[in-house]
Amino acid sequence: MAKNAFYAQSGGVTSVINVSAAAVIETARQYAGQIGTVYAGYRGILGALEENLIDTAQFSPEQITALKHTPGGAFGSCRYKLKGLDENRKEYERLIEVFKAHDIGYFFYNGGNDSQDTANKVAQLSEAMGYPLQCIGIPKTIDNDLPITDCCPGFGSVAKYIATSTLECGLDVKAMSISTKVFIIEVMGRHTGWIAAAAGLARQADGQAPHIILFPEVPFDEAKFLAETQRCVEQHGYCVIAVSEGTKTADGKFIAESGLKDAFGHSQLGGAATVISELVKSKLGYKNHYAIADYMQRSARHLSSKTDFDQAYAVGKAAVEFAIAGKTAMMPVIIRTSNAPYEWHIEEAPLNKIANVEKMMPPEFISEDGFHITEAAREYLAPLTYGEAYPPYKNGLPSYEHLRFELIDKQCAPFKR
Amino acid sequence: MAKNAFYAQSGGVTSVINVSAAAVIETARQYAGQIGTVYAGYRGILGALEENLIDTAQFSPEQITALKHTPGGAFGSCRYKLKGLDENRKEYERLIEVFKAHDIGYFFYNGGNDSQDTANKVAQLSEAMGYPLQCIGIPKTIDNDLPITDCCPGFGSVAKYIATSTLECGLDVKAMSISTKVFIIEVMGRHTGWIAAAAGLARQADGQAPHIILFPEVPFDEAKFLAETQRCVEQHGYCVIAVSEGTKTADGKFIAESGLKDAFGHSQLGGAATVISELVKSKLGYKNHYAIADYMQRSARHLSSKTDFDQAYAVGKAAVEFAIAGKTAMMPVIIRTSNAPYEWHIEEAPLNKIANVEKMMPPEFISEDGFHITEAAREYLAPLTYGEAYPPYKNGLPSYEHLRFELIDKQCAPFKR
Repeated sequence: MAKNAFYAQSGGVTSVINVSAAAVIETARQYAGQIGTVYAGYRGILGALEENLIDTAQFSPEQITALKHTPGGAFGSCRYKLKGLDENRKEYERLIEVFKAHDIGYFFYNGGNDSQDTANKVAQLSEAMGYPLQCIGIPKTIDNDLPITDCCPGFGSVAKYIATSTLECGLDVKAMSISTKVFIIEVMGRHTGWIAAAAGLARQADGQAPHIILFPEVPFDEAKFLAETQRCVEQHGYCVIAVSEGTKTADGKFIAESGLKDAFGHSQLGGAATVISELVKSKLGYKNHYAIADYMQRSARHLSSKTDFDQAYAVGKAAVEFAIAGKTAMMPVIIRTSNAPYEWHIEEAPLNKIANVEKMMPPEFISEDGFHITEAAREYLAPLTYGEAYPPYKNGLPSYEHLRFELIDKQCAPFKR
Repeated sequence: MAKNAFYAQSGGVTSVINVSAAAVIETARQYAGQIGTVYAGYRGILGALEENLIDTAQFSPEQITALKHTPGGAFGSCRYKLKGLDENRKEYERLIEVFKAHDIGYFFYNGGNDSQDTANKVAQLSEAMGYPLQCIGIPKTIDNDLPITDCCPGFGSVAKYIATSTLECGLDVKAMSISTKVFIIEVMGRHTGWIAAAAGLARQADGQAPHIILFPEVPFDEAKFLAETQRCVEQHGYCVIAVSEGTKTADGKFIAESGLKDAFGHSQLGGAATVISELVKSKLGYKNHYAIADYMQRSARHLSSKTDFDQAYAVGKAAVEFAIAGKTAMMPVIIRTSNAPYEWHIEEAPLNKIANVEKMMPPEFISEDGFHITEAAREYLAPLTYGEAYPPYKNGLPSYEHLRFELIDKQCAPFKR
């Protein structure tokens, strides 16, 4: 008897999370004997708790294909973390209630660390409460910090975008360097410097941008930073700085909140780039520009990496195939077997080894001076950016799918938290 | 007898100014009987004043081809504005000295308003000082504010990039809208709202991003803005705002310097996006994100418009052909003859009608509520973004040309200002 499936997107969205969604739906349709309807949760696990479900059967194959070239999270996301089974049994009972009502036998959760914790807890729930459910996590995070998997879908495209943007802005400021001496690009990554490191790919020869990378892993040393900035300007005529939003001072405070003062002595709020810009202006007197990539970097489907695209599809497809094979409490992971040529394949890993484990960037990826990436980092990072997965364009703009849907009729009473 | 040519890049660089450079060099090479060597000025007109000249004959056809897909300004730019002939005769005499020393008979200056003023003054100089020089301006500015020409090379690519980024970020924040209610993207354009208007192209149906555009042309009304932001969040669940760096309050002050206070009562420095973000947070309590595109938008060669690319080439080619035809003190302009299908061709316009004239955006391009573009704006803007002119990629990144060059030996004494 075919059981229905629940699929949801969780945490910060990426330019390719919809590729994984499309893979789940397309693959499930190939196993119509085992998987009935794929219900997408509206806004992640909240879709299950609140019984806000989307019947994906309403979408044509063309719409599912279009999803693959559309950024954002087509079904809505959330940052809701389930408590432990003992702490909030009510939530778990509610999940079972909804799953029972809709004959859900498969649970696919597409997200990062917290989301895999959710998937793991749902797997525990299934066992503890005697409700059979195959729970498969699907990796996704631009932070690239899930363990076991070699990399995380979503990251490769951000890496490509940030490296390309750093390269492009470097050429720009070089041309303008008679007046603008410093350019700063702020990138995401509150806990780890994976994205900041990706900016380093732009530097293909000595002297090229970026001239300085500020990593969350390296305590920000103002004097050392200013000296290096000045040295770069004097040597190259300009200096391009990639700063992670997670850059911290030695006492562990984010520089964006570190009490650095602006030129008027006011506490400086705003992003890390603003702080660095003020510092460079007030202490070195250099005219500078700064960009804050923010959501642009993770939604830039127009520049997605083909490798990332392929991996996002592969993990979605594998998730369904693993479920069909009877597996549960696991996540497909990407295993790299070669750098040159770049080769990878999918294996599986248990969710209890993944949930809540944050993979930090290896120290050997950061140069001794703390301002650059090493050759080892480059070998790891570069393949993740290989290939272009351009969306189709119409009248000058990417023709993204603005998916519209109705929620299905509810079978259960409203959920009271 | 063949005369040599001087070509230089001036003002803010773009993703396609090197396309115009390539067009000048390639076309000049076709007229070897009339044009000898093309010397590029290092850093615009300063290259002539300081006799810092680059012999472009050293570049292979492959390097010139590669220039076409490389952003930035390959020969360096400047923002140096020549004074009037009466105010600083010394500078003009110096130009003549350098031009004579290198047998320069053609002067090509690639830039925006100020740069066309320079080109025009050099043309006047040529006449006043009896030194024969054919002076041709080549239009370029992301600000799109040169008169007579229908549009300016460089702008179409920024329009495509900003519209695409707004579209992408809109899909992202929509997915995250259970927590992040507002997203703000800051775009360039200190004097006119051409780029802000381009963000409006992302809105292909009611309810889509951007929900609010803040133009330099429309005085910022805090109460009205906050009310509309709240209305959008309540109606759509989220609100995407495109804000021009040139947005001003009714008293003419940039909002980035308008004395708005942050949550702590401090004067808010930094970009317009920061000010809007603080306002939305403090007055409406909405969690929000903001991006500042800055140089990213004008150097994003990876997303250049094919139309823009073609026009950047066409004006460079036409400049040389006009010079060969004996013309001077003029600039090739782009004339639009049809919106659908989009059709254009090159004509000529006298520099004295272009220099220092700023083309403002027509009032009828802004909707009555001041927050959107009209259908007329859309018809004007969309064709400029048509087509993709992708650069080649190598190992995941665009393979841009990092042009290296030596300056030629100087013939004149050093210039003392």
